[in-house]
Amino acid sequence: MATMQQVAERAGVSIATVSFVVNGSKKVLPHTRERVEAAMRELGYSRNHAGSALARGRTDIIALLYPAFERNLSGTAMTFFTSAADRARERGYTLVLWPAHNEAAEITELTASGLVDGVLLMEVQLEDGRVDRLKEGRTPFALIGRTQDPEGMAWVDVDFASSVETAIEELVALGHTSILYISGATEKRFVAHGGVARARESYLQTMAQSGLTATTLTCGENSAAGRLLAAELVEHHPDATAIILMNEHAAPGLAIGLAQHGVRVPDDLSIISIGTSAHMASMAEPVLTHMDSPAAELGRLGVDAIIERINEPDRPLPQTLIPCTPGEGASVARAPRR
Amino acid sequence: MATMQQVAERAGVSIATVSFVVNGSKKVLPHTRERVEAAMRELGYSRNHAGSALARGRTDIIALLYPAFERNLSGTAMTFFTSAADRARERGYTLVLWPAHNEAAEITELTASGLVDGVLLMEVQLEDGRVDRLKEGRTPFALIGRTQDPEGMAWVDVDFASSVETAIEELVALGHTSILYISGATEKRFVAHGGVARARESYLQTMAQSGLTATTLTCGENSAAGRLLAAELVEHHPDATAIILMNEHAAPGLAIGLAQHGVRVPDDLSIISIGTSAHMASMAEPVLTHMDSPAAELGRLGVDAIIERINEPDRPLPQTLIPCTPGEGASVARAPRR
Repeated sequence: MATMQQVAERAGVSIATVSFVVNGSKKVLPHTRERVEAAMRELGYSRNHAGSALARGRTDIIALLYPAFERNLSGTAMTFFTSAADRARERGYTLVLWPAHNEAAEITELTASGLVDGVLLMEVQLEDGRVDRLKEGRTPFALIGRTQDPEGMAWVDVDFASSVETAIEELVALGHTSILYISGATEKRFVAHGGVARARESYLQTMAQSGLTATTLTCGENSAAGRLLAAELVEHHPDATAIILMNEHAAPGLAIGLAQHGVRVPDDLSIISIGTSAHMASMAEPVLTHMDSPAAELGRLGVDAIIERINEPDRPLPQTLIPCTPGEGASVARAPRR
Repeated sequence: MATMQQVAERAGVSIATVSFVVNGSKKVLPHTRERVEAAMRELGYSRNHAGSALARGRTDIIALLYPAFERNLSGTAMTFFTSAADRARERGYTLVLWPAHNEAAEITELTASGLVDGVLLMEVQLEDGRVDRLKEGRTPFALIGRTQDPEGMAWVDVDFASSVETAIEELVALGHTSILYISGATEKRFVAHGGVARARESYLQTMAQSGLTATTLTCGENSAAGRLLAAELVEHHPDATAIILMNEHAAPGLAIGLAQHGVRVPDDLSIISIGTSAHMASMAEPVLTHMDSPAAELGRLGVDAIIERINEPDRPLPQTLIPCTPGEGASVARAPRR
């Protein structure tokens, strides 16, 4: 196999320049890059990444493990992936989205394969068998999210609890006392999901502390379900004046359904959409007042956390909580007089 | 390192059963699986996938290459990914989403790495430097989409051309003569995109053949841009009675904007949304009459195509065109009398 030196000679450049091209570690002028690439092809040079990487015990690949079979990636998760992939690239790694069933055996297999240097686990459950397997293995890992007791692990997570608390406080300050909480699908695994469970718990606690009655509802994660929910609200919860919504995909349909039933948002009913994006909030009319998921920041921090685990395992464990950030919208107003 | 035989002895099962657990190739009773996994952990058994795979020149990994840095995955692309990952798993492979800038050098590096057995390339452009690199390399590949001249390559693609033609014929049969075409963002790469370019070309041709005047517009891929587009339509295209929409993310905002300007869909203006899903179509009011992207089928066929290239390179090249399928909606009606 050709060496980097031979490529450099053929292309008439320094070895450093070849290295820059091969590793993408520094900008190289387009025509220089083309010369180097041509020389690589002509000489059949390859980094022989897998071979050399395995020899030194590294592949420079990070697996972002996502249960793609069970749940479609939300826009938020996609932003997370894009941001994480970008950050990994900046730091000399390739981050790939690795689909997985939520099965512990798959984790054992992946970490034993030697194909990845580290694992980032998404959609963490309060009790999570995959985390137990990751703990047993030797592959460094970090969580996007948290188990019930995340001590002794590296994690970054969205602070849904404080976001829900902030939203309720804002609504209470505007005179609302009948505030519903609406989250996604009802299946067990969503209740067991760390973020979903903590958000709901925060709602229940904050309402109790404010002396208010809590009412939680669920709704499928699509617009058709949102439309149906509107009818249910009109029939069974006519006194509600505000909604905390943890279900961005149902939002446009919910707004459409409410309008069809003559419920004006925000005059009759205020809505705060939590853990979403301006893109999704803008699909409803009026544009929803919302709290943005910090997906892009989480992606960067998650990658930094796993790279630190890979390279500096003796450093203190990164454990970072990031709140949602308030976004513009027109779906919140003072509570109507009844 | 422990052998499969030792694991079988420790777990008190046959080697075949260990193999089933390790390879996920057959269902194993939960408690048997647990015994095998416990024995694997206790003995430190690992498939040593990377090592043995490289020794036999295989990793059983397929990379689905996607320009995630430049474009967020649409819901449709996500459906494609999920379906492809599922199909790969059925056939004993792992399909990972591999983010890439649209740079040819990255392709050279990936195919030279030996880390993947095959590459599926998404978002194919009419002239695509990445395809040229794939042709030069030795790693089998298949395209999701087509270049200008895809002869000599394996590909599966959506037949946008026939879908657009069908949509226009349906509108013409309902008396429409002023039919606008609205696609996504204006940047060069979208025009250069095989599917986008062929859909637009089909619109221009079909309108010409029908003796009708063609008008194409572009609009950012989000609801805010859709709202603005509504104002533009009212001001500059008051005579239009129908829209062919190739921009699912702008659709909810467009419908909202039209309603705010007093334009009734479908009484005043019909809309057919092409290459989308029932999920997205339902985010607008009325639910959009649409043509579903065959994303799930494309995912399965794409994986079958690349696996055939990997294992049976001498067979005829798979080249498959799949039309969109009509979906329910309420946004098309007879053309209004003017």
